[in-house]
Amino acid sequence: MPTVQNPRLTGLVCIRCGRRYEIADHSTGCPACLAEGTPANLECAYAPGGPGGVEQPYLRPVTLGEGGTPLLTDVTGAVPGLDVTLKWEGANPTGSHKDRFSAVAVSRAVHAGYQGIAAASSGNAGVSLATYCGRAGLRCEIAVTDDTPGQVVDLMRDLGAEVVSFPHSEQRWEHIAGYRDSTTMLPVTNFVVPPVGSSPFGIEGYKLVAEEILTDRSGAAPEWVVVPASRGDLAWGVYLGFRELLGAGAVPRILLVEPFPRVVSVLAGADPYATFPGTTRAMPSLGGNQLALQAVEAVRRSRGHAEAVDDERVLAETRRLWRAGLPLEPSSAAGLVAVSQALAAGTMTADSDVVVLATAHGLKGM
Amino acid sequence: MPTVQNPRLTGLVCIRCGRRYEIADHSTGCPACLAEGTPANLECAYAPGGPGGVEQPYLRPVTLGEGGTPLLTDVTGAVPGLDVTLKWEGANPTGSHKDRFSAVAVSRAVHAGYQGIAAASSGNAGVSLATYCGRAGLRCEIAVTDDTPGQVVDLMRDLGAEVVSFPHSEQRWEHIAGYRDSTTMLPVTNFVVPPVGSSPFGIEGYKLVAEEILTDRSGAAPEWVVVPASRGDLAWGVYLGFRELLGAGAVPRILLVEPFPRVVSVLAGADPYATFPGTTRAMPSLGGNQLALQAVEAVRRSRGHAEAVDDERVLAETRRLWRAGLPLEPSSAAGLVAVSQALAAGTMTADSDVVVLATAHGLKGM
Ligand SMILES: [Zn+2]
Ligand SMILES: [Zn+2]
Repeated sequence: MPTVQNPRLTGLVCIRCGRRYEIADHSTGCPACLAEGTPANLECAYAPGGPGGVEQPYLRPVTLGEGGTPLLTDVTGAVPGLDVTLKWEGANPTGSHKDRFSAVAVSRAVHAGYQGIAAASSGNAGVSLATYCGRAGLRCEIAVTDDTPGQVVDLMRDLGAEVVSFPHSEQRWEHIAGYRDSTTMLPVTNFVVPPVGSSPFGIEGYKLVAEEILTDRSGAAPEWVVVPASRGDLAWGVYLGFRELLGAGAVPRILLVEPFPRVVSVLAGADPYATFPGTTRAMPSLGGNQLALQAVEAVRRSRGHAEAVDDERVLAETRRLWRAGLPLEPSSAAGLVAVSQALAAGTMTADSDVVVLATAHGLKGM
Repeated sequence: MPTVQNPRLTGLVCIRCGRRYEIADHSTGCPACLAEGTPANLECAYAPGGPGGVEQPYLRPVTLGEGGTPLLTDVTGAVPGLDVTLKWEGANPTGSHKDRFSAVAVSRAVHAGYQGIAAASSGNAGVSLATYCGRAGLRCEIAVTDDTPGQVVDLMRDLGAEVVSFPHSEQRWEHIAGYRDSTTMLPVTNFVVPPVGSSPFGIEGYKLVAEEILTDRSGAAPEWVVVPASRGDLAWGVYLGFRELLGAGAVPRILLVEPFPRVVSVLAGADPYATFPGTTRAMPSLGGNQLALQAVEAVRRSRGHAEAVDDERVLAETRRLWRAGLPLEPSSAAGLVAVSQALAAGTMTADSDVVVLATAHGLKGM
């Protein structure tokens, strides 16, 4: 059955200036904000009259059964001193939350008549996009850096992706930018500097994380949702989902987790379009020295908070969690370290009602 | 919350002779049948009065949210000439159907007061058991062969398992047999020759595969369920689930898939306790030169069929499926090869209603 565009999808709206645009692939976000030097992503806008639950831009999407991941309560010991709930995104078809994005982004590419998609990825996204492109019969080009593990590159190639490698991360973006006006290849990850984030269609897939959390808790919103972030695709998508279901005033607070201060600095007064020094080897999927506005907005609009977590502590915690039967990749374990820090700082207490997004299992060796 | 034994669990019954036994870990199957040289597994027996759905031996089990895996319809091209439905078991917490077994087997070990479990594994089971033992705070010892990939051994060790390695597969069984009368370490995989299969408690976890298939199809049983098998734990557990829900006369036909003729030979008249020559390098989890009676019974009692599939063809099909967005490990792709063969032979037709158990994704590099 072919993918169908949701008839209630009316256009896209800039998350910064509110300008409206027609349905199209604005891969650089809002053109007006880009021209002003303050790039910002767009979000999907829908007419009222939905069937209940969050709206999705494409109906009958390309799917491998992503979503419906377990909400693990009673996870004693994940964070000493607090009973957190884990949303185990490793139970997606290719083992990470990225499958939610891929299903929608690839459905968009199919619907719009592209021959393929292009993306920069440090691992999970590339594996996921390659898989979904394979399902849809689309070409898939993944731009990696030369330090990407050979095992991960092999996975992508075995999945039929064309993998191109560059010495520096920014060179991947320049390469992807070459597809900016292509009518055959659709870029679905960010290539703008400062960044805007990934495809607003793909991000809609993350709204279902919010819906599933509420459904599994009989409608009761948690107090906090903990989200590891680089440019905040997941954090922003989860925020959008809660906002759509609960209203802007009743969303859970988002605790955004990063490997060095970026949103932390913005909350302390820094310009969101600044460059933030720092590196991470343990959490490649959370790296990057510039923010996307959507990451900041997910925190600000949810009255949230941000924690920067240290490589060494995350790696030690990852090793401990594996032995406790929670084989998370370090970028996911980072969420539990952040909760420990928030607890120590008094931002959270032993009574806090906290859902941590365990974004990917570590069994693929990434 | 502690694990609780189902109060309706009344004992265990031999699948061959029907003798009843008390609830205990009969790791060599039915003692009477073993003494007669015809070993056979036991199955759990329940008093009537269940709450609907299949019975499970342990309530509030050790869990990572296993099960609830997607049923993928509309999987065009998986088998040319037939629209199969895939049950995507890769969407379990550690990426394979074994998580269903581990949850129950480890819950049994916790309830019975063991300090740990021991198992022989070629990959997925070891990773899964190590994870669930970690959740439960149990020791986990996995016996592997020297040709197990180092990456897989590393995963098990990172999960806290003690890994012991042997040159030959049978030496693993001899090692596990050393725990036969242990009150501290519980063997959960087969160590008897001829084999009986794995823990009958763990096998109960596979009944939920049948329940989910029926639920997702609004109660309509498929005509065929395709199950890759070595000693038939999964095939037998799925059979038990359908029998419990539909009655013995209405179960779907099981197409058992093996890497060289074993059940195929038995259906043609061979002794199920014979030795069957053959090897497989592509499908290590389906190897072994002797059958367990449960594998034969799953086919016989379901009026089923068996297909032997060839290494080369399975590997070629695996490569094709990866590029079509279905990253299955070869032991899972084997099920789709078997359907092609059954279609060519006229055992199935283009109209057949077929569910294939896609037992594990191949992204862990096994
Ligand atoms: Zn704008
Ligand atoms: Zn017996």
